[in-house]
Amino acid sequence: MEVDELVCLPRLPRVAVCGGTHGNELSGVYLVRELLKMEKKVTKEEEEEEEEEEDERVSVLMVLSNPRAMLQCRRYVDTDLNRCFTRATLNGPVSDVAPYEITRALELNRMLGPKGSPAAVDLVCDLHNTTANMGLCLIAYSDCDWICLHIFKHLQREMPDVPIRFIHFDVSSKESYSLDSVGKHGFAMEIGPQPHGVVRSNVYTAMRVGVQNMLDWVRFFNSGTIFEGGFVEVFSMVKHIDYPRDRETRTITAAIHPQLQDRDFCLLHPGDPLFQTFSGETLPYKGKEPLYPFFINECAYYEKGIALSLARKRRVMIPSIRVQTEHEQESYVQEFTSEEEE
Amino acid sequence: MEVDELVCLPRLPRVAVCGGTHGNELSGVYLVRELLKMEKKVTKEEEEEEEEEEDERVSVLMVLSNPRAMLQCRRYVDTDLNRCFTRATLNGPVSDVAPYEITRALELNRMLGPKGSPAAVDLVCDLHNTTANMGLCLIAYSDCDWICLHIFKHLQREMPDVPIRFIHFDVSSKESYSLDSVGKHGFAMEIGPQPHGVVRSNVYTAMRVGVQNMLDWVRFFNSGTIFEGGFVEVFSMVKHIDYPRDRETRTITAAIHPQLQDRDFCLLHPGDPLFQTFSGETLPYKGKEPLYPFFINECAYYEKGIALSLARKRRVMIPSIRVQTEHEQESYVQEFTSEEEE
Repeated sequence: MEVDELVCLPRLPRVAVCGGTHGNELSGVYLVRELLKMEKKVTKEEEEEEEEEEDERVSVLMVLSNPRAMLQCRRYVDTDLNRCFTRATLNGPVSDVAPYEITRALELNRMLGPKGSPAAVDLVCDLHNTTANMGLCLIAYSDCDWICLHIFKHLQREMPDVPIRFIHFDVSSKESYSLDSVGKHGFAMEIGPQPHGVVRSNVYTAMRVGVQNMLDWVRFFNSGTIFEGGFVEVFSMVKHIDYPRDRETRTITAAIHPQLQDRDFCLLHPGDPLFQTFSGETLPYKGKEPLYPFFINECAYYEKGIALSLARKRRVMIPSIRVQTEHEQESYVQEFTSEEEE
Repeated sequence: MEVDELVCLPRLPRVAVCGGTHGNELSGVYLVRELLKMEKKVTKEEEEEEEEEEDERVSVLMVLSNPRAMLQCRRYVDTDLNRCFTRATLNGPVSDVAPYEITRALELNRMLGPKGSPAAVDLVCDLHNTTANMGLCLIAYSDCDWICLHIFKHLQREMPDVPIRFIHFDVSSKESYSLDSVGKHGFAMEIGPQPHGVVRSNVYTAMRVGVQNMLDWVRFFNSGTIFEGGFVEVFSMVKHIDYPRDRETRTITAAIHPQLQDRDFCLLHPGDPLFQTFSGETLPYKGKEPLYPFFINECAYYEKGIALSLARKRRVMIPSIRVQTEHEQESYVQEFTSEEEE
């Protein structure tokens, strides 16, 4: 790629902001509720004023993804909703006794997708919290989705007081499992540390400002602003590490070492303290390569067998971008359609 | 009370250490499991060695209070176990369809009580975690239980790096509702901040050292050590404050203000920021008296309508104490029995 290359990308007329995909991650729950309240107010005012033209606005769809789990203040009722958006699950058979979240995933796919189709919303921003000290992270399946990476760059520039990082999970579109994979572009906005079932003002505010900046960026982009390219840092997931466990009972026998706790994105070297057993012994990191830990001691991952994840840090060159003209847009639609038919 | 008074109190031969009363408060769960493992080992070694005399030891009963909730990593299954130990509930009728925790409370009362009877264990230490930044707190129903207050003083002296406080809930023995009320003496050992469903090494270690020091104190006491009296600080609970809520839906409309979050036991003055609404507005504390906040933003109290609790700080004079001689003990038993019969 040439550094001064200018990539032209389709408009993003439809954006979805989703909260409560995990019912006990409360920043997103309360933020989406607040946005819905504001939307009601704004719509009323607009009806009265009838001033703005519809073309200039972005249609923002606010979604509370898992209302049953929200009601119980639990991550999920039957199964983790944010693992239900693989092509296999979305296209599989559904019975009357299907887990609630499977049924709900199909509903959301009809509402925001269908995944992989031209009808899907242009961008899904799915709001999450973590108990790990991760600051604000965008998590996506691609390291070459210029829309997501430019939004990341924009947030970093606009929110200098919040540590903002981009995490890349190298999973194919077919295998991708999370709600944000339903949009043409999509990412999870993950903010921590915050205990699940709790809302902390500072975390809520970071999310509110993050979403506001994301929507501002989309409006700038749609209205023709050129965004300069450059290098960005991307953390690419390499592997997960489980807790030490009792062979028979499978209960954990150690916790994250106090010297590692809360040090997400600080390089972990071979030999560094990793766990502290419940009898007080230190267990070191036995990997051969220094890597960047994240999701350190995330509450919901005890049951998934993940004590922390490890990433490699890379520099990724992103091109300058601007929105396509109407003419360019038409030829893109043809291209997209023929690709899909292959 | 004379400052140099020496109060003689009965021996404490039986102590219960309970974890998992709330199934997702993991420090206690893993600590009791670890103590049970060590006990197994020690018992084996003792069997082999047959050296120590039984009289010199304290019998420590380790209890996992709510195994079903632990299995699901939830606070409780049907109802909050730690509200089930009132005399009314313990003496009420039980049906086959009683909530699990009621049945379990009766079991625990048979095991550690019966509450208020001479057969009850001498001391119950019930282990808890909070998402609030409270350090290590002993919570009890009495501000004149010299055993509990001397243990508190001992922990403060032995653990200078951990902030340790004593909280007093002024509730009668009859109305007292928590597991620790089943013992002749009892307190909750509450440590935070730690998200529920997560174990943090530093919090686990503080609890381990706290329990160790508590048991050491009991052994010193039983063997005749005189503990000097003096003044201690006690936080007496005055009232709870709920979150601002939507009148119709009852959902919360604000979070703890960022300037108050994590500032447990820092004096809150009238007019100080208390909440921040989800639209960004600050709501001040409207009380007339400066008070000490605690349990600020405790996860489990959203459903109980408690955003924080407020306490008054008092100095309490505690006397010097030592264990009763055998002769004194006998007359105490008579006294206790006749009191019970009143």
